[in-house]
Amino acid sequence: MAGDSVAFQQWKNQCLNKCDFSKKGSVDEDISHIVSFINSHDRYFTTSSCSGRIILFDGALDCQEVQKRNCSWLFVSHQKCQSEDVLTSLKKSVGDATFKFEPFVLHVQCKQLEDAQLLHTVAVNSGFRNSGITVGKKGKIIMAVRSTQCLEVPVSHRGAVLINDQYLDFLVRVSNQKMEENLKRIERFYECLQTALQPQEQRCSLKEAADKKPVYRRRRKRTQDDSVTDCCQTIKDHNENSEEGTDCNLLFLS
Amino acid sequence: MAGDSVAFQQWKNQCLNKCDFSKKGSVDEDISHIVSFINSHDRYFTTSSCSGRIILFDGALDCQEVQKRNCSWLFVSHQKCQSEDVLTSLKKSVGDATFKFEPFVLHVQCKQLEDAQLLHTVAVNSGFRNSGITVGKKGKIIMAVRSTQCLEVPVSHRGAVLINDQYLDFLVRVSNQKMEENLKRIERFYECLQTALQPQEQRCSLKEAADKKPVYRRRRKRTQDDSVTDCCQTIKDHNENSEEGTDCNLLFLS
Repeated sequence: MAGDSVAFQQWKNQCLNKCDFSKKGSVDEDISHIVSFINSHDRYFTTSSCSGRIILFDGALDCQEVQKRNCSWLFVSHQKCQSEDVLTSLKKSVGDATFKFEPFVLHVQCKQLEDAQLLHTVAVNSGFRNSGITVGKKGKIIMAVRSTQCLEVPVSHRGAVLINDQYLDFLVRVSNQKMEENLKRIERFYECLQTALQPQEQRCSLKEAADKKPVYRRRRKRTQDDSVTDCCQTIKDHNENSEEGTDCNLLFLS
Repeated sequence: MAGDSVAFQQWKNQCLNKCDFSKKGSVDEDISHIVSFINSHDRYFTTSSCSGRIILFDGALDCQEVQKRNCSWLFVSHQKCQSEDVLTSLKKSVGDATFKFEPFVLHVQCKQLEDAQLLHTVAVNSGFRNSGITVGKKGKIIMAVRSTQCLEVPVSHRGAVLINDQYLDFLVRVSNQKMEENLKRIERFYECLQTALQPQEQRCSLKEAADKKPVYRRRRKRTQDDSVTDCCQTIKDHNENSEEGTDCNLLFLS
């Protein structure tokens, strides 16, 4: 099941050497440190990424996702944006335009399933609760970091704008708030990632210290009023089966 | 890594015998056949499910997901709905209401990773492209069926409705279209599932027939104009690493 070492290294070399075929052609600035960090680790490499974006795209209503070839991108921003800019772009719509906020997405190929599980824990604990693992027939193990924090708003139909300026302004403000939260989660992810991928000897020292003086304890169950500030707190989701609350520091030390 | 047989059976018994703690308290009608079918199979059992829903909930803008305890549900329908009903509910908003379409979601605990992979292929081939596998520390293997086909529209702020009736009507029509497509994908999923979980002897007969007269061939690469009508066609996604196109009939026979 686990990718053979040589095969994994070949996949990694091929992936990191090829051109970036994304529309943008480069890694998004807000996550370049994460991508570099992951790619410097011998058990992982990134296959695709997006720091998050606010977009306006024109397409048919049955064009359910942003297919790069079918839909026309009217506006895209990987940071907070101004409603005037979105409004100007919306006026160019000739079809059914949709305004969207999409959070951080990252796909990482992992050497073994245990590596994917570790990364999955980091992702979920950082707030990216829709993250999941794919294991392909050829042994390719991909961990996808995903979140449920989205906006998807149809704003024109056959080129006719359906909403007024004030509402568009409101949508942009909400998206900017989501972008802010998204960037916080990205940083939380990076911090947890660094802890998780500490070299073995550093983790052993931590474990010795922990054995002498148990400072890691089971966290209290998260209540609904808790804001997600602590990446080491397991998030329970009524929709998902999750392990009983685990302290991710203990996870990393085991 | 794979759950031990006895442990898996114990988990299954516990899960199927406990009360349904969901808000609704029962399995949604449009997927009860799928849930029954999966639970009758000794290598799987469902842990949570939703056939898809059109909802209106009231909450704080930083309440990113529908947390059952924090947000107030103003309207919910697991089928197509009428805009008059949504409008009536919207008038009851006292906070920040969000109108959402959420597609089919299913969580299935699997006996072994190979079982999860099979189900994952079925899900992706049926159009549920955000599906993924979680492998917990205790050996729990969950395959989550998920889709990207959503709507999420903020429609009131501090109780003040932000949109007019015509726009709400449009949102309901779009959601109803999505619900229709969602139900088609559910049926596609069920058909693929039945093929995938055929008893071994039936699959061998199919293989013998295939060896004599090769009728299974690599499908042409899916173009962006293709509507997803064939559950046996692998869907490529620019965002995700996918295996090179595989015929899922061949997959099931291997």
